[in-house]
Amino acid sequence: MYSFICDYSEGAHPNILKSLASTCYEQNEGYNYDRHCINAANLIKKEINHEDVDVYFLPGGTPTNLISIAACLRSYEAVIAPSTGHIEVHETGAIEATGHKILSVKTPDGKLTPSHIQEVLDGFEDEHTVRRKMVFLTNPTENGTIYLKSELLAIRKICDENDMYLYIDGARLGSAIMAEGNDVKMEDLPKIADIFYIGGTKNGALMAEALIIVNEKIKPDFRFHIKQRGALTAKGSVLGIQFEELMRDKLYFKLAKHSNDMAQKMAREFERLGFTFLTDSPTNQIFPIIPNTIITELEKSYQFYVWQIIDKDHSAIRLVTSWATPEERINEFLKDLNQLAQSLHMIKNL
Amino acid sequence: MYSFICDYSEGAHPNILKSLASTCYEQNEGYNYDRHCINAANLIKKEINHEDVDVYFLPGGTPTNLISIAACLRSYEAVIAPSTGHIEVHETGAIEATGHKILSVKTPDGKLTPSHIQEVLDGFEDEHTVRRKMVFLTNPTENGTIYLKSELLAIRKICDENDMYLYIDGARLGSAIMAEGNDVKMEDLPKIADIFYIGGTKNGALMAEALIIVNEKIKPDFRFHIKQRGALTAKGSVLGIQFEELMRDKLYFKLAKHSNDMAQKMAREFERLGFTFLTDSPTNQIFPIIPNTIITELEKSYQFYVWQIIDKDHSAIRLVTSWATPEERINEFLKDLNQLAQSLHMIKNL
Amino acid sequence: MYSFICDYSEGAHPNILKSLASTCYEQNEGYNYDRHCINAANLIKKEINHEDVDVYFLPGGTPTNLISIAACLRSYEAVIAPSTGHIEVHETGAIEATGHKILSVKTPDGKLTPSHIQEVLDGFEDEHTVRRKMVFLTNPTENGTIYLKSELLAIRKICDENDMYLYIDGARLGSAIMAEGNDVKMEDLPKIADIFYIGGTKNGALMAEALIIVNEKIKPDFRFHIKQRGALTAKGSVLGIQFEELMRDKLYFKLAKHSNDMAQKMAREFERLGFTFLTDSPTNQIFPIIPNTIITELEKSYQFYVWQIIDKDHSAIRLVTSWATPEERINEFLKDLNQLAQSLHMIKNL
Amino acid sequence: MYSFICDYSEGAHPNILKSLASTCYEQNEGYNYDRHCINAANLIKKEINHEDVDVYFLPGGTPTNLISIAACLRSYEAVIAPSTGHIEVHETGAIEATGHKILSVKTPDGKLTPSHIQEVLDGFEDEHTVRRKMVFLTNPTENGTIYLKSELLAIRKICDENDMYLYIDGARLGSAIMAEGNDVKMEDLPKIADIFYIGGTKNGALMAEALIIVNEKIKPDFRFHIKQRGALTAKGSVLGIQFEELMRDKLYFKLAKHSNDMAQKMAREFERLGFTFLTDSPTNQIFPIIPNTIITELEKSYQFYVWQIIDKDHSAIRLVTSWATPEERINEFLKDLNQLAQSLHMIKNL
Repeated sequence: MYSFICDYSEGAHPNILKSLASTCYEQNEGYNYDRHCINAANLIKKEINHEDVDVYFLPGGTPTNLISIAACLRSYEAVIAPSTGHIEVHETGAIEATGHKILSVKTPDGKLTPSHIQEVLDGFEDEHTVRRKMVFLTNPTENGTIYLKSELLAIRKICDENDMYLYIDGARLGSAIMAEGNDVKMEDLPKIADIFYIGGTKNGALMAEALIIVNEKIKPDFRFHIKQRGALTAKGSVLGIQFEELMRDKLYFKLAKHSNDMAQKMAREFERLGFTFLTDSPTNQIFPIIPNTIITELEKSYQFYVWQIIDKDHSAIRLVTSWATPEERINEFLKDLNQLAQSLHMIKNL
Repeated sequence: MYSFICDYSEGAHPNILKSLASTCYEQNEGYNYDRHCINAANLIKKEINHEDVDVYFLPGGTPTNLISIAACLRSYEAVIAPSTGHIEVHETGAIEATGHKILSVKTPDGKLTPSHIQEVLDGFEDEHTVRRKMVFLTNPTENGTIYLKSELLAIRKICDENDMYLYIDGARLGSAIMAEGNDVKMEDLPKIADIFYIGGTKNGALMAEALIIVNEKIKPDFRFHIKQRGALTAKGSVLGIQFEELMRDKLYFKLAKHSNDMAQKMAREFERLGFTFLTDSPTNQIFPIIPNTIITELEKSYQFYVWQIIDKDHSAIRLVTSWATPEERINEFLKDLNQLAQSLHMIKNL
Repeated sequence: MYSFICDYSEGAHPNILKSLASTCYEQNEGYNYDRHCINAANLIKKEINHEDVDVYFLPGGTPTNLISIAACLRSYEAVIAPSTGHIEVHETGAIEATGHKILSVKTPDGKLTPSHIQEVLDGFEDEHTVRRKMVFLTNPTENGTIYLKSELLAIRKICDENDMYLYIDGARLGSAIMAEGNDVKMEDLPKIADIFYIGGTKNGALMAEALIIVNEKIKPDFRFHIKQRGALTAKGSVLGIQFEELMRDKLYFKLAKHSNDMAQKMAREFERLGFTFLTDSPTNQIFPIIPNTIITELEKSYQFYVWQIIDKDHSAIRLVTSWATPEERINEFLKDLNQLAQSLHMIKNL
Repeated sequence: MYSFICDYSEGAHPNILKSLASTCYEQNEGYNYDRHCINAANLIKKEINHEDVDVYFLPGGTPTNLISIAACLRSYEAVIAPSTGHIEVHETGAIEATGHKILSVKTPDGKLTPSHIQEVLDGFEDEHTVRRKMVFLTNPTENGTIYLKSELLAIRKICDENDMYLYIDGARLGSAIMAEGNDVKMEDLPKIADIFYIGGTKNGALMAEALIIVNEKIKPDFRFHIKQRGALTAKGSVLGIQFEELMRDKLYFKLAKHSNDMAQKMAREFERLGFTFLTDSPTNQIFPIIPNTIITELEKSYQFYVWQIIDKDHSAIRLVTSWATPEERINEFLKDLNQLAQSLHMIKNL
C-alpha cells in the first residue's frame, strides 16, 4: 500500500537528521535564541533578499496561523479568507478560539481576488460589524492553484487602500515557487505580504515553519504571542537546525521541485488518458476526475482522498506527492492506472 | 563557558535521532495515528501498569498545560495552583488566554498541600466567584522539591471531596521518580491524577510530552482540543518515535537518574563546603546559597540563573543538569568551586 | 421628522414606568432573586404552559445571545446560523469573542431549513473541523419572515438526529406570534427549542429580555455564565418589573399586535399602489421596493433604512413600527406616499 | 425586616423615573447617539471640568470593568489589582474570560500603593511573563476606605514610569467624593486616571454607569468593544436620561452624601458604644466588629453580611446604606443596637 494522502507522510530529509545527530550534545540557548535559529534566519533573509524582517521558527502550521492572526488583530477585528481556507475549514475553530471572526468568501478555485475581498469589505457598516483588518491567503491554495505576481500585487493594493494586513500561509510555499507557470519569487514576498511563513513540515522538515514579519507594526512583542499560545519551543535549536539545512544549497527548493515533478508526471499521464481535473494545479497536489470504478481498483494498492463527488459515476481524487516520493512508485502507479484505463476502455467498447 | 541554565540546552538522545533517521522514508499516518505513537502509547501503558488511559503526544509543556486545563474546565471554572507554578508565572498568561482564572496560593516550597487548597476553596461563594474545578501541581516542583505518595494521596482526597480534577505537570517527572527519597511509582500516577504528563523535552527528547488521560469524563473529543490549540502534530510519528525510544529499556529513567546524579554530586560538595540551600531538592535542579563574590567568579566560566537574593552578600543560584551533562564537567566545576571557596576562606581568615 | 428606523426608538410602556416609580423605595434582593423576577418568571411559565424551565432576565439581546451560545458549547463546538443572522452580521463578532465559530449558510429569506442545516452538517469530518452542536434561528427573522410550526418542528427533528441544541432568538418574538398566518403558539416554544428568549426591549420594555432554558443539560450553573459575561443585573427587580407588566393582561401581545398592525397597514397601501416587497413579512418590519425618487422625497420627512439596492432606479427600504407608533403618523405617511406615487405616475404618463 | 445588604436594594430616584415617564413616547437615536446621552455626557464633562474625554453609558459595573480592561490590553498584557478587588474576587473570572490575567497583590486595607505595584512589576522578566500594562483600583475600595489625592498621584507616577494605564472603578465614586476626609475632586480624576467610571447603579440609578476615557490611545474604536461584549444598549437614551437627572443640580452628590451620612451616623454610635471597626471607612459601608450574640439578635430584624470572623465571640459585619435609606430606619436600628448593647453590658456586669 503506497500513500498519496499527504506530504507529511514521511519523516525529515536525511541532512536534517544528520545535523540534529551531530549537534545533539551541543549546548544552546533556549527559545529561538540559539546560533542555529540565528543562522537560519540569516539564510532566509538572504533568500528573500530582505534584511529588515523578524524571523521566528514554529513547530506547525496551525499554531503559526493562529498566532499570526491573533497577534495582528484587536479583539473586534476580523480576517478575510476563502471559504476553502485551512483556517476556515480544517483548524477546528482555532482562529475563533483566539476570539476572532473569519469572514469567508466563496471562490471558484480557492484563490481570493480583489473583488472577493471588496465583497466582504462592503459588508462593513460601523461598530455593529467586525472591522476588516487582514486578508489571509494560501499559496499554493488547498486546491493546488497558485497566485501570479500580478494577482498578489492586486490584493496588496486593496489591502493598502483599506488599511488591512496581508498574511500569506506558505505551508507548501516551496511547491508554489517551483511550479511551472509561477512568476512569484521569494524576494517578492516581503514586498507583498506583511507577514508570511515558509512551510517546512510539508517539505522535508520534521516539524518546523519559518514565520517572517515584514510590517513594523506587527513586530513588537511578537515573542509574547508565540509563548502565550504554547509555540515557543524550548529547544529552539531543533527548529533552527531544520531550516539551516533546508536553506543550505537551495535544498528546500530542490525538494519542492522533486515533489512537483512527481505529481506533474502523474498529471500528464492522466491528461494523456483523457481525464480532466477539478482544478488546474501545477503543484504537488493534483485532483484528477476519474470513474469510480477506477477509484475502487486504485484503492486496493494506494491511499488517497476522494475529494469531491462529480456525478454518479465520477469523482475527483487528490494525489499528493512529497520530497520523498520515489519516481519508481510514480511509474508503478501510472502502469496500474494505464491498465485500469485500458480495461475500462475495453469494457466501454464491448 | 559551560551552561547549567536548564535541562533543555542539549538536543535529543542519540537513540532517538537514530530511530528518526532510520525511519525517515517510512510512510506514516498523520496526527498521532501512526504505528509509532500507538507503540509508544502501549509502552507507556505498560510502564504505568494501566491499560485504560488515553495517551497523546504533544510538542511542548506549555501547549500540554493549556490544552489539558482548557479541556477540563467550563468557562467559569478555575484551576488552583501554587504561586510558583509554571502556569502562573512563566507561560505569559497562556491559561487566561483560554479564558480561565488561575487561583494561586503561596507555598513555602512550591508544594501544594490540602490546607492550601482548602484556603482557596473557602473563597468560593456562589455565581459571583469562579468555581474551583481543578488542582494543578508539578512534580518535581519548580523548586526541585518532590511530593511523597502520601502527600499526593491527600491532595487526591480533597479533590474527590470537592469534585475537582487533579492535573500533574510532569515536565521533569523522570527526575522526581528517580530522586532519592521518592516513593511515588509510575504506576501510582494514574491512580492519583485524572490527567498528567510525562515530560520528554527536558529529559532527552527533541520536543515531546506524553499526556495521559485517566478520567473518563476528560476523554471524549480531546483530540478536538489538541487540534484547536495548534498542537496536533501533522508528523505525529516524530513524537511517537521519541517516546518509543525513551520507553525502550527504561532509557527515560536512566537519563533522569544520570541527570539527578550529576546535580546531587554538586549538591553534596556544596554541603561539604558548608553552604546551605534555598530548597531541599533531590532532583536535577539545586539551589545553593553562596556568596556573591563566588557567584561573580563562577559566572566567568559557567552560565546559571541567580535565582533569589538572600541578603546583601548572598544569593541562591540555580544549577540544572541534564541527561547529557558529562561527569567531567561536574568535576571541573567542583574543582573551581573548591578553589573559590578556599580563597574566600583565606580572605575571611586574614 | 418621524422615524421608522427601528422598534427601539421610543422608551418603555407607561405601565412599566408606573410600576418602577411605585416600587422605587421598595427593598429587593439583588441579581434576579427578587420577588418581581420570581413573579415575572411564573407569569412566563404560565404563558408558555411549562413549569419546568429556568427563566432569567437579561438587559439586552446581544448579551443574551452570546451568553446562551457560549454556555451551551464546549470550546470546539460551533453554532449554525443563517448568513443574515444577527449574531453573524451585527454583533461585532460577539460569539467569536467567546471562542466559538459560527457556521453561516445563505438562505433566500433569512429562514433556515433542514437542508441548509444538513449542508453544514455535511462539512463535518473529524477533530480537524468544529463540531456542529447548535442551531441558531430568529423568529421573526431579520427579514421579517416567520417560521411555521411545521418548519420549526422539522428543524427540531434534525437537531435531535444530530445531537444539536436549538436556540431561538426572539428579539421580536411578540411580532411573530401575533403575525397573520402564524401558527406557532407560545406554549409550542418550550417543546421545540432547548433555549429561547422573549424579547422585551423591542416591544415596550426599557431594556429587558427573558431567557427560557428548557433543556436540563443547559440549566446547571447558568448563573455563572450570566455573571461572567457582565449581564447579571444588580438591580434585578428592574428587569423583573418590566416583564411583570408585559405579561400582565397580555400587554406584551397587545403591543406586538399594534406594532404589526401599523406596519401591515402601510404594507397594504404599498401593495395597493402596485409596489412589491423584498420579503413577505407579516410582522412589524416591511421591506417595500420603491423608486429612488420617492425615497429621496420620503427622506425629507421620515427616517428609515435603505435596505438593498434592487436596480439603478429602485431600492428596498425598511420601515419598522413599534408598540408606540401612533396610527395618525401612519396615516400621514400613507398620505405622503400616495401623493408621491401620484406625482410619479403623472410624470411617467407625460 | 430592613436590609443593609447593599446599595442596590432600592430602585431609582424619582427624578429619573419621572424623566423616563415623560419621554417614553419620544423617538431617539439608538446606541448612545441620542440627545440625552449627549446632554448627559456634556454635564459630566462640565462636572469633571474636562472637555476632551469620550463618555459612554453602560448598564452595569461588571461589563464596564471587563470592557475597559479588555479594550486597553493586548492579549499578553495583564492588569494589577488588589486581591480584594471586585474583578479579582466577585466577577466570576470575567476578566480572564476576555483572555487577560489579573496580577493580584495583598493589601492591608484594599488600597494599592506604589510599593504593591512595584512588587508586581518586579515579577516581570521577558516574554515568558505577562506584560504589566494596567493598574486597577476602586475608590472607595470594597473595604470602604478612600484614596487621598496624594496617594492617587503617587500611583499615577508609577504608572507613567512603567507605561501603564490607570483605571479607576468608581462603582461608588459619589460616596468617596462626599466622604469626610476626602480631598479628591471630580475634576482631579481625568488628570489622574486614563479611564474611569462614575457609578450610577449604586447611587440612585436603575442601572447605568458613565465611563470616561481620557487617554487618546484608548479612544479609537471603543464602541466596537462595547458592542462586542454585549453592552451597547439599544435604547441608549434610557441610560442617558439616568445620568442627565443624576448630574442635574448635583443630585448625584446629594444622594451620595445622604448615603454616607446615614452610614456614618451608625458608625458614630457604634464608636460611642465602644465598638471598633475592621476598616476605617468614611463612606456608606461600615464594618463594625461586634459580639456574635448581638449579631444574632440584630439578624432578627435586619439583613446584612457577616463579613469576617474576628475571634470566637466577635465578627465584623457590613452595613451598607443607600440614597434611599430613611433616617428613621437608622434611628430605629440604633435604638435596637443600644438596647442590645445595654443588655450585653448588664449581663457582663452580673
